[in-house]
Amino acid sequence: MQAFVLISVTLCLIQAAVNAGAQKPYPCKSPPLMVGRLSMLNPKGHTAVYERFSYDALGSRIYVRASVTFNNNTIYEDLLLLFREGVFYEISYENRTCKKSELKGHFQPIEIPQDAQLLGQVVLGSSSTPGAGLLVNSWIGSVPVTKEKYLLTFTEFGCIPVSSMTYTEETGWIISSFYDFVIGIEDPNEFIPPPFCEKAELNRSNARSAKSFFNFLG
Amino acid sequence: MQAFVLISVTLCLIQAAVNAGAQKPYPCKSPPLMVGRLSMLNPKGHTAVYERFSYDALGSRIYVRASVTFNNNTIYEDLLLLFREGVFYEISYENRTCKKSELKGHFQPIEIPQDAQLLGQVVLGSSSTPGAGLLVNSWIGSVPVTKEKYLLTFTEFGCIPVSSMTYTEETGWIISSFYDFVIGIEDPNEFIPPPFCEKAELNRSNARSAKSFFNFLG
Repeated sequence: MQAFVLISVTLCLIQAAVNAGAQKPYPCKSPPLMVGRLSMLNPKGHTAVYERFSYDALGSRIYVRASVTFNNNTIYEDLLLLFREGVFYEISYENRTCKKSELKGHFQPIEIPQDAQLLGQVVLGSSSTPGAGLLVNSWIGSVPVTKEKYLLTFTEFGCIPVSSMTYTEETGWIISSFYDFVIGIEDPNEFIPPPFCEKAELNRSNARSAKSFFNFLG
Repeated sequence: MQAFVLISVTLCLIQAAVNAGAQKPYPCKSPPLMVGRLSMLNPKGHTAVYERFSYDALGSRIYVRASVTFNNNTIYEDLLLLFREGVFYEISYENRTCKKSELKGHFQPIEIPQDAQLLGQVVLGSSSTPGAGLLVNSWIGSVPVTKEKYLLTFTEFGCIPVSSMTYTEETGWIISSFYDFVIGIEDPNEFIPPPFCEKAELNRSNARSAKSFFNFLG
């Protein structure tokens, strides 16, 4: 069995290498339904964020469970972002409280922008051993409106985000690592506001705007 | 053919998951012969390093071709470290010049220290798609003598370094990414000093000491 697996993996890697050699990487869009995790560090803002998120690009909605550490204080935040309705909920399941606020801007899918420049292709780890390597592409560019500079690394196969670095004068560098992605939605109920949110009134003074997927999660 | 590859990869992933579930990750040692690349950033020291290195743990020797950017000035450096002889060479093939200096300390293999603590295991990318995920382990600890704190991420299969973060009061954070590892040595001649190094005299005032593999490359 193990010998079969080894041969199979070798075939996979050869196939991967042939595919990779056959074409230049192109900007890609991630699968529309995913669950994943991220760790984010913003040294200038003294902020570290650890998140698990469910991502539904078909329904334009994101559910985030975050722990945010700012100046050594940690808070836990559950956020439900419903872009079609233009609202987001800050939910505390523990206290059964809910804040409903205005969500500005359009839903931004997880993708490499079409005008990004390919920085290069590398294998994280090694292509010499089965299961020891991951072929990724790195892209750089800037967002015209916000002047935000970015460096995005996505997998060649599957177009899954691996890391992002974004920079603006205001925020400094924001460094994110992505991992544990599963394609599909584990629990669609996560996108439905819980019953105790029904009475929450829209708070317009607390509005947030989404500039890009990566800076929104931060 | 493609269907066969897909089935094979799925089997590999299941096998990987079974292996991973069957045992707790343990500190590991990287293969003794490797060629790889790294990018290193030291924000406090305003230094960025890009390197290709050949690593021979059997012969206790390392050959490094580095570009070092310090305060926006870039220099190129070829280093040959021969730990058994206790010397290192700074070589310029372009100018055919060579400096030979004392190398203190023992050869440090690329490995997870035995007393490191497992921080966790994650899949970079996704395990849902063939070729889109890499199973890695993260370890934290500190070096007793130097008080250097580290966070090391190595692949579960193959024990290949993926990233390292080290911290001392003196240096601040040093963040390194490793990639493009190939197991084996591409050109063993790289470990032999070139003919124009024969006349180089040992300069004892320029001695360097190796504390760990990771801080030496930096």
